[in-house]
Amino acid sequence: MDPRIEEHARILVEWSTEIKRGDKVLIRATPESHDLAVAVARKASEKGAQLIVTLASEEINRAIFDGADDEALKTTNDIMLNLSKDLDVFISLGAPMNTKALANVEPKRLMMDSIAGQPISEVIMKTRWCGTVHPCRSLAQQAGMSLNEYQDFVYGAMLVDWEAESKNMVLMKEHLEKHSDIRYIGPETDLFAKTEGRIWIASDGKHNMPSGEVFTAPIEDTVEGKIYFDIPFMYQGKVIKDVRLTFEKGVVVDYSAGQEEETLKAILEVDEGSSRLGEMAIGTNRGIKQYTLNMLFDEKIGDTIHCALGLAYKDNNGTNESAVHVDMIKTMIEGEIIAGDEVIYSKGKYFYEK
Amino acid sequence: MDPRIEEHARILVEWSTEIKRGDKVLIRATPESHDLAVAVARKASEKGAQLIVTLASEEINRAIFDGADDEALKTTNDIMLNLSKDLDVFISLGAPMNTKALANVEPKRLMMDSIAGQPISEVIMKTRWCGTVHPCRSLAQQAGMSLNEYQDFVYGAMLVDWEAESKNMVLMKEHLEKHSDIRYIGPETDLFAKTEGRIWIASDGKHNMPSGEVFTAPIEDTVEGKIYFDIPFMYQGKVIKDVRLTFEKGVVVDYSAGQEEETLKAILEVDEGSSRLGEMAIGTNRGIKQYTLNMLFDEKIGDTIHCALGLAYKDNNGTNESAVHVDMIKTMIEGEIIAGDEVIYSKGKYFYEK
Repeated sequence: MDPRIEEHARILVEWSTEIKRGDKVLIRATPESHDLAVAVARKASEKGAQLIVTLASEEINRAIFDGADDEALKTTNDIMLNLSKDLDVFISLGAPMNTKALANVEPKRLMMDSIAGQPISEVIMKTRWCGTVHPCRSLAQQAGMSLNEYQDFVYGAMLVDWEAESKNMVLMKEHLEKHSDIRYIGPETDLFAKTEGRIWIASDGKHNMPSGEVFTAPIEDTVEGKIYFDIPFMYQGKVIKDVRLTFEKGVVVDYSAGQEEETLKAILEVDEGSSRLGEMAIGTNRGIKQYTLNMLFDEKIGDTIHCALGLAYKDNNGTNESAVHVDMIKTMIEGEIIAGDEVIYSKGKYFYEK
Repeated sequence: MDPRIEEHARILVEWSTEIKRGDKVLIRATPESHDLAVAVARKASEKGAQLIVTLASEEINRAIFDGADDEALKTTNDIMLNLSKDLDVFISLGAPMNTKALANVEPKRLMMDSIAGQPISEVIMKTRWCGTVHPCRSLAQQAGMSLNEYQDFVYGAMLVDWEAESKNMVLMKEHLEKHSDIRYIGPETDLFAKTEGRIWIASDGKHNMPSGEVFTAPIEDTVEGKIYFDIPFMYQGKVIKDVRLTFEKGVVVDYSAGQEEETLKAILEVDEGSSRLGEMAIGTNRGIKQYTLNMLFDEKIGDTIHCALGLAYKDNNGTNESAVHVDMIKTMIEGEIIAGDEVIYSKGKYFYEK
């Protein structure tokens, strides 16, 4: 086995989820992440954990979609809900066989399923959960790389000294929390929001692997201004490009996309919360050199910010409710991030790099 | 997709487990049975079932074994136990990547795990459960066939008219239940047992796919005589050959094996019940032409009988208790099966074929 797989598993078990004897652990694997599942199972078993491994395959998901009527799609899966309540740790090892398997499902039906799944997500987020990926051919293809190049890309982002990374992120969190607002300035962009009473979280590899972002939930009615997200992103199989949004009193009042504008419109119309921001964040992982249409990596890229439409995290003291949470990313290499009167980032340098 | 996979899935969902709206269904898949899992998920979803798919991989199991200490191995997995209690239907789609992955685990540790898993098995057996296989390369290799040949072998055994098969089996069950004992006669074999008050079950594809056996639990203290099992069988990765057993008052008093006698000894010494018979049965599936070291098929071969050491099924009114249930098979083409004064089978013909 590639020793990087074993090191990845060690980080997941020891750093991210801190598995200990008696923990009830669910490993969500795919056929392509089987080898990582073996390594994680081994490490978790060494700690004395109880394990269940579920199979997440986008082809199985597609089959369930194609077979289910609307009534079935709208029903929360009680098996998963009850199982989730029984867990201490949830680890998702993403590695699709085909990232487009759900591309042609009717968005309305995807949304029904997403809404029905919300109670399950809420329960899982009370566990020590972590989402990661295992480098596989479909993700390499999506990223425009060979498998070997993609493995180097992935492990470059993940196999770092998370304790050292964590220190910088915690420092940034502390500086951001001294102030009561946040402002992103750059090309076609001047976005402002108040953050008083909200918590900035240093995401240092506990819930996402790789990680590297410091994020909060803005006070949703205070978001004002416009922003241009120059990095493409994938939503349910569709690649959305060049999103431009204008906010007034927290609500999107004007929008456009250079590609898949209809899908952007569908997102904004899911519910009241999906046209408001649930998250504003700063990416800090310099080990991630380019976007790969995988949000787990893309939102962590160093020298970027991102915002999410929809659900705010309770851990941020966020209050925006929605069935969706859609992240969009902007390069900041020509921009500035300002909190109150403090420059947090300016054209390639975080304040702690000055 | 091979239309035989879809027909296999249809039989599992409509005949074997009769899935209906609202059923909570667990599909236990392996990386190799993914395509069948897709087809079963589709059919079950069409019926309106709720689904969970778990990943059973012998490499993950091996990793758990290698990582766990004895304390962990002896502990019943509460996640699986609680989950199982929540199920209406359990379908296992067996298809290993490597049938030898557990061959070199210490038998004592395998046994610990098996004992710890017993409460889970008991709960699952209260569901509408079915075990089947998906034809894959490792099973083809074990059977000494190419994948194409093995697919023909598997689907030949499974894609039959189960309603018609069921009629013959039910007829045999009725004849066997008119009598109060059973006797197997053949080369190196004369084995007798009383069966009064026990139920003969016509296994017509509800719990095993393929199926084709009529079986009971003998009154365990009444088993007398000797038997030679000429068909090899696999137990936890080991191939045991040419097992000869002698019973007195239901207990094995003499034994030998032409290969893996130590493993046979270990089985007999698991507990009190593992040196007694929990099952006596008649195979009826003429679509299975040869043994393939896969009990699901081998015990169903037409013109054979089999006996199992260990656990008796409650559904037979069986009372033998054990942590194991190990089937062993004998060709009867030169032998006879007699119940009371009725010849049930003689040299190639079941009574209903006369």
